[in-house]
Amino acid sequence: MAVPNKFILYNYWRSSCSWRVRSVLELKQIPYEYRPVNLVKGEQYSEEFRRLNPLNQVPTLQVQTSDGHSEILHESMAIIDYLEQTFPTPSIYPKDPIERAKVITIAETIVSGIQPIQNLSVGRKIEELSDSKIRSGDWSREWIRMKFQKLEIFLKSMSGTHTFGNHLTLADFCLVPQVANAIRFKVDMDEFPLLKRLYEFLLTVEPIAKAQPSNQPDKQ
Amino acid sequence: MAVPNKFILYNYWRSSCSWRVRSVLELKQIPYEYRPVNLVKGEQYSEEFRRLNPLNQVPTLQVQTSDGHSEILHESMAIIDYLEQTFPTPSIYPKDPIERAKVITIAETIVSGIQPIQNLSVGRKIEELSDSKIRSGDWSREWIRMKFQKLEIFLKSMSGTHTFGNHLTLADFCLVPQVANAIRFKVDMDEFPLLKRLYEFLLTVEPIAKAQPSNQPDKQ
Repeated sequence: MAVPNKFILYNYWRSSCSWRVRSVLELKQIPYEYRPVNLVKGEQYSEEFRRLNPLNQVPTLQVQTSDGHSEILHESMAIIDYLEQTFPTPSIYPKDPIERAKVITIAETIVSGIQPIQNLSVGRKIEELSDSKIRSGDWSREWIRMKFQKLEIFLKSMSGTHTFGNHLTLADFCLVPQVANAIRFKVDMDEFPLLKRLYEFLLTVEPIAKAQPSNQPDKQ
Repeated sequence: MAVPNKFILYNYWRSSCSWRVRSVLELKQIPYEYRPVNLVKGEQYSEEFRRLNPLNQVPTLQVQTSDGHSEILHESMAIIDYLEQTFPTPSIYPKDPIERAKVITIAETIVSGIQPIQNLSVGRKIEELSDSKIRSGDWSREWIRMKFQKLEIFLKSMSGTHTFGNHLTLADFCLVPQVANAIRFKVDMDEFPLLKRLYEFLLTVEPIAKAQPSNQPDKQ
């Protein structure tokens, strides 16, 4: 089987889904080439990028293999699964299948239940359809706050020093960028002491710290 | 290690996320007890159910183990991962890590990019905040249609008889319930000939057919 020998990550410094993938690349110490796609300028809709990803989204990972072949992967959770399958150590999951599922529950609560709904594309569509009765930023703040109220309670029985227990997992890589989004949308994090404590600690943990937006070359 | 010996699935006949999990249980021929939670009556908010799942969502899987212990799992993708880890054959994924990631890309495009945004809880919130300027059903139909336009193009390079290639995978278990939702929301499926063809074929495939809403005991 051909072996992957080069990774190119198309991403954006402030994209929370990009941050998830960068954290996993850092954890597994996989070198990669960074290619910025400026979402605010709409570069994800360019003809060039559309050829790479007809879904017009970052992150997008190009995998070049030892036989000169190249594959394109989309969606943060799919890219992360590929990295976990191909570079299993250190793992992003606990070994026990129940504990592993709980980590995925936390991740999916954010990945499917919060992030896509507070996302700019949804906010803008709602603003447009409501003739600006609902403002995009207000929508995002309201949705995150509603969901964080449930997440704060849910995590009480699961979190230790880290989002799940006392070890770095996929749950951390999903939580931190989501809290960063919340802060950008001016959600008052004092309402969520557990989420706030986890965020502040995890921002100092190396893979997440290295992968954070302010350390990226396209940072503005 | 304790062995799981009984599964109780809290779910709702028409919930698309429940259908995903039921399909995987059928594929792996895992017997389970069916416990209906009527989402339209709001049973997911009852005190009894909140104790099982503070996120107030179905599907929720209760796993009873041989040592008398019991664990609760939430979120369809987490439950499905647990079932795949614990009963790996037949698998819901291709063996090749790149192909596996592509299956997850399709799944996540639906699981995080379409389903949660067309969901009733989002539609109702938008209807409320916009003083009914945006109607919940219109929002769902508009969002699904916009996303199906991209998905139809995206799948052209991937689909065979099945959503990914010619074998049953997680992608099928996510696509079929989403098309069923689209039909409920009166999306004109003639605009999406590939999605329509896949849906009509896959509805005849045993695990999906057995798990479909009309075959469930709480069907109305």
